[in-house]
Amino acid sequence: MPQPEKAVLAIDAHGGDHGLSVTLPATLSALQQDSRLEIRLVGVLDQLEPALAAQGSLEQSLASRLHLHAAESALPMDVTAIYALRKGEGSSLWAGIQLVAEGAADACVSGGSTGAMMALGVRLLGMLPGIERPVLMAYIPHADGFTGALDLGANLSVTERQLVQFAVMGSLTAEKVDGISNPRVGLLNVGHEESKGHVTVQAAHGLLKEMPINYIGFVEGNDLYSGKVDVAVCDGFSGNLILKASEGLARLTISQLRQAFSAGLSGRLGGWFARRALKRVLEGLDPSAHNGAPLLGLRGVVVKSHGHADTRAYTQAILEAGQAARKELPRRIDSLIRQYNLEA
Amino acid sequence: MPQPEKAVLAIDAHGGDHGLSVTLPATLSALQQDSRLEIRLVGVLDQLEPALAAQGSLEQSLASRLHLHAAESALPMDVTAIYALRKGEGSSLWAGIQLVAEGAADACVSGGSTGAMMALGVRLLGMLPGIERPVLMAYIPHADGFTGALDLGANLSVTERQLVQFAVMGSLTAEKVDGISNPRVGLLNVGHEESKGHVTVQAAHGLLKEMPINYIGFVEGNDLYSGKVDVAVCDGFSGNLILKASEGLARLTISQLRQAFSAGLSGRLGGWFARRALKRVLEGLDPSAHNGAPLLGLRGVVVKSHGHADTRAYTQAILEAGQAARKELPRRIDSLIRQYNLEA
Repeated sequence: MPQPEKAVLAIDAHGGDHGLSVTLPATLSALQQDSRLEIRLVGVLDQLEPALAAQGSLEQSLASRLHLHAAESALPMDVTAIYALRKGEGSSLWAGIQLVAEGAADACVSGGSTGAMMALGVRLLGMLPGIERPVLMAYIPHADGFTGALDLGANLSVTERQLVQFAVMGSLTAEKVDGISNPRVGLLNVGHEESKGHVTVQAAHGLLKEMPINYIGFVEGNDLYSGKVDVAVCDGFSGNLILKASEGLARLTISQLRQAFSAGLSGRLGGWFARRALKRVLEGLDPSAHNGAPLLGLRGVVVKSHGHADTRAYTQAILEAGQAARKELPRRIDSLIRQYNLEA
Repeated sequence: MPQPEKAVLAIDAHGGDHGLSVTLPATLSALQQDSRLEIRLVGVLDQLEPALAAQGSLEQSLASRLHLHAAESALPMDVTAIYALRKGEGSSLWAGIQLVAEGAADACVSGGSTGAMMALGVRLLGMLPGIERPVLMAYIPHADGFTGALDLGANLSVTERQLVQFAVMGSLTAEKVDGISNPRVGLLNVGHEESKGHVTVQAAHGLLKEMPINYIGFVEGNDLYSGKVDVAVCDGFSGNLILKASEGLARLTISQLRQAFSAGLSGRLGGWFARRALKRVLEGLDPSAHNGAPLLGLRGVVVKSHGHADTRAYTQAILEAGQAARKELPRRIDSLIRQYNLEA
């Protein structure tokens, strides 16, 4: 295997529910797993320094690739986009994205508020020409892997060109970041038949057939879980409802299973005997099984981690950001959008 | 309890995957459970008569309330709306809805194709004034009951007035048919906050606050499974995607659970000990746990049964149709729509 290129990542030390207690061990773990990664851990030095000291002395090969970068404050988890724009300067998220804007980092990772990340991404990095708002791609777990789904809430009403942009960005991400060769891309609709759907999906369907991606046509809601596509595209309004409904159903099922296998002697015995099988089913239902959702359409790489990610999950998001940075995802997206005149 | 009023139902004997082997026993069961019900079982007499004879002699109290009504043919299960309109005359579905149109029945129940039912409902009964297309209300099972959700696919692009119509129709159905007093109605959106959503949901939100229903505001996708609302309203495009995605996830989970508890000795032992608890969880995941989805907005009562309904489920749809007929659901909907000038 060829040596990977060097990549420099800015990690928001304070983003996410668990702050430094997750971001620091995840940073060390990512540095260990990827020897050409360099990390700028961005946060309040008064907190970063003692936390780092508590890790004991690091191997030289790790220590030389880890730099602390000072920020004045940490944004609260539930911060709005407007608050982040008005009061966010000096925060670890702002400083992390600023490093990307200045070319001092190739990508930024944070587990902070999605709204704040989008707002600061747009403000500090800017959008690629012809793309109106950043698009968040989420990964939905199914029996054999994940379906990438976008958009999930930023773009509530979309044009056919935006749907095509989502498809192109999703396809490039699945291929370059997730390593899926020739990813199958579908357009979510109320039926598979050519005649189905409203005018916008009909128009997007026509455009998508001409695109240099593996577009397989209309897919339905259940195909998110059937493994039929690698990337599923829809407007942000439907996407948000679908994702949250699925999360709601998954949480309900998890709680009912836990209840069923803790109530009564036979339930508890059943749970004990089947604990391994049960664990797999519960893990499969976990909507955060795949961590690291790229914000697509920006002039730089920003990757969102789940707020409640643990060290293993946060490490996954960091490694994914390294991959997106090395593959120059924004440049590739920009090139396809311009080549096919897909400006919205 | 006051004696219920008489209600006459037309049952499509051939609708659904199992045809007469489900519709006939369900008809007899419904007649037994509801002593003021009268049923016209609509189908091909050459098939109906021997099937009925095979049941042995019926009690007089049942036999006197069951009438066979001749149709020439049965529509295939996967029939399109256009086929039903062009070639459906003489079919059991057409004849059943025709009985409602003529006033010879108060409601029609079928497990046939949704598209065919909608098309023939519009053609033979007509829409209530100001309503453009029939709306299908589905019931989504959650921990403590069901959330009624509409629309689910007939109305892909909606106006704010249509969303308000859906809310009014859903509220009346939940109250009059399902017996929920003061049902809580929510509008599906990408967030709870007043500022969220696109212009159509914003406008609908404003109108809904003025309506004589228990409108609780915006709800999110996960609230379909939280028990926070009795009725959730959205456009048919999103509704269809949500419903099918949930069905996809439920089917995947059911198959993974079955697999987990049949693989290996410990899995099988676990499944055996926890079989009762497991059965409850699996039943809770079954999207067809509640059978009987009313087609709202027509000038008569038409209730859709799941195609794969068994006798118990089909009986439920029949009893629900009886309730909708007695409560004069179309008249009540019409009255509210006119009173509040909600014509689309």
